[in-house]
Amino acid sequence: MRHTISIFVDNESGVLSRIAGLFSARGFNIESLNVAPTEDPETSRITLVTTGDDFIIQQIIKRFNNMVNVIRVTDLSDANRVEREMALIKIKTTEKNRAEILRIVDIFRAKVVDTSIKSYTIEITGDIEKVGGFIELLKPFGIKEIARTGTVAMTRENKIKAK
Amino acid sequence: MRHTISIFVDNESGVLSRIAGLFSARGFNIESLNVAPTEDPETSRITLVTTGDDFIIQQIIKRFNNMVNVIRVTDLSDANRVEREMALIKIKTTEKNRAEILRIVDIFRAKVVDTSIKSYTIEITGDIEKVGGFIELLKPFGIKEIARTGTVAMTRENKIKAK
Repeated sequence: MRHTISIFVDNESGVLSRIAGLFSARGFNIESLNVAPTEDPETSRITLVTTGDDFIIQQIIKRFNNMVNVIRVTDLSDANRVEREMALIKIKTTEKNRAEILRIVDIFRAKVVDTSIKSYTIEITGDIEKVGGFIELLKPFGIKEIARTGTVAMTRENKIKAK
Repeated sequence: MRHTISIFVDNESGVLSRIAGLFSARGFNIESLNVAPTEDPETSRITLVTTGDDFIIQQIIKRFNNMVNVIRVTDLSDANRVEREMALIKIKTTEKNRAEILRIVDIFRAKVVDTSIKSYTIEITGDIEKVGGFIELLKPFGIKEIARTGTVAMTRENKIKAK
């Protein structure tokens, strides 16, 4: 099963390496991961997405809870949650296809954040399916470069999904 | 100096842990980091932001270039680049302050992606200063939770900065 795990850690060097190491020691691949400061500059938040055996993932999470510099771990996989990522995508453009590209950008509520004579750099946010679908649609134009942030997630406050 | 480093790696378990370990072994703190697949499912891209002595960072980058499973490393710090991140911010709301919060959301071109009777979850994208400034403005309302993706970056194709 796919797991989205949120880990609050002390902002100390070495913590990230140990957390990533615990996954690789068990042969798990990390699909995406990001780490950045929270509202408290002493604390960072890691969001990690991985796929694998539920039982082993629960064991790893238990290990995290006993690790120095780990404040709190939550497996959000079963929670009702907001889950989004951002991607920057640089694609080749020609005089002929620019209008069509901009139509796709509009439909996906993406935006062009940089432009040159031969390229657009586009920013998109959404869940993994939306971002993946957008990238598939742009592939025929010629993708020069992609940078995805990986998923960030938090629980929803109620069960009504507005968007 | 602040460094934004882009690292293309084979999508293998263990690579991230080794890369993060190399920084912590030198006592560097990683300000933000993210890793996610590229258009080639065999390759992942890591974007890492750190601050420290330029000479030592150049030494670490050289080490990366000789590491197994590391395809390419680029220090984007001196490049003309697009640099953006995304954040999800959950804040407390009351009947009185909702209109004011939505005004701030509009000004920053952010968007509310989840709502309950007592909270909004807001998505914002931009450079680190914009996202940091937005968070500062929201603090007085009461922040319940923040999840930032950390910076992703790519070079600009020309020297004209559109936005």
